[in-house]
Amino acid sequence: MAPIITISREFGSGGHSIGEKVAEKLGIPFYDGEIVRRVAEESGYAKDLIEEQGEHTSMGNRWFDISTASAMYFQSPQDEIFLAQRKVILDCAASGPCVIVGRCSDYILKSEEIRALNVLIHADMEHRISRIIERYGELKEISAKKRIAKKDKQRRTYYRYYTDQHWGNYENYDLALDSGTLGEDTCVHMICELAERF
Amino acid sequence: MAPIITISREFGSGGHSIGEKVAEKLGIPFYDGEIVRRVAEESGYAKDLIEEQGEHTSMGNRWFDISTASAMYFQSPQDEIFLAQRKVILDCAASGPCVIVGRCSDYILKSEEIRALNVLIHADMEHRISRIIERYGELKEISAKKRIAKKDKQRRTYYRYYTDQHWGNYENYDLALDSGTLGEDTCVHMICELAERF
Repeated sequence: MAPIITISREFGSGGHSIGEKVAEKLGIPFYDGEIVRRVAEESGYAKDLIEEQGEHTSMGNRWFDISTASAMYFQSPQDEIFLAQRKVILDCAASGPCVIVGRCSDYILKSEEIRALNVLIHADMEHRISRIIERYGELKEISAKKRIAKKDKQRRTYYRYYTDQHWGNYENYDLALDSGTLGEDTCVHMICELAERF
Repeated sequence: MAPIITISREFGSGGHSIGEKVAEKLGIPFYDGEIVRRVAEESGYAKDLIEEQGEHTSMGNRWFDISTASAMYFQSPQDEIFLAQRKVILDCAASGPCVIVGRCSDYILKSEEIRALNVLIHADMEHRISRIIERYGELKEISAKKRIAKKDKQRRTYYRYYTDQHWGNYENYDLALDSGTLGEDTCVHMICELAERF
């Protein structure tokens, strides 16, 4: 049986697309945008806000403590979205093997002692810029680079805030792959290969 | 044809043993202890000193600049050993596909624009302690932990000194594997699988 697979990814590394192909090859559900839809149902917040806040936070100087979260008098919309998203991610995992992209899913499953195959997809700046320009045709190289730097920073800050750990620490992943040097198809192949032996 | 493979490893993660099996499976030379023997020939320093200094440095607060190294009036024995080791590593790579373990080999080959498959092997502390105790039978858990912490620090400092980069940054590796969660055989399989597609 295939395992639960979490995919953490650098913006522009193709992690979404790799995760989608892995799920298709293994015949298991793929959760990325679908999480947003379910969190909207769960929390009542608009999908746009969830997409905006679901991996970003501006709270750089304090940390979220999940153990006291339910006892807190005031929760920001961001924290409410995080909690709803956490519940949705745990529900996805509870329903069996699947691929879940981003949103601290590796940390959330670990904190509940749910064993998953945790994968990190990264690529050098040059490959990420080409990919972003290809995807959002109108962008110039300089804008693509700025967009990548901003997204990276937002995701790292979000991860730091909700997990109190640094994003991208190799110790958190069973497998880390450079999609720039290896290419998307090889990454898909390697993840499926490992999933079969896991 | 198999590629040149460099293996960076945490002490106690089984990187040496994994590298040896990969080389055997692919039918290519394996360089770890052999490097020490060749550096001894090259530099005239004793093998014991090379083993001791070949991945360690006490120079925590300055950096080695390879571009000015040959013009320097005074070189420490450590720097001389590094330079001899660098030459040996480049010679190994020049003779064709092989597996090279540690000693900044990933950085040394990159700096000469020699393309290699760069692999990082890591494992959590618990797995590393068991492995070290198994290997050096007499060690107690607390001594194993101290030994791991010391070796990690020495290798990181050495890498930092000679490359001016942080050891273990995922960006430097095509593939990173957790030998603790995946096991040695799966790591060997994954590296060989990637080597065939590289």
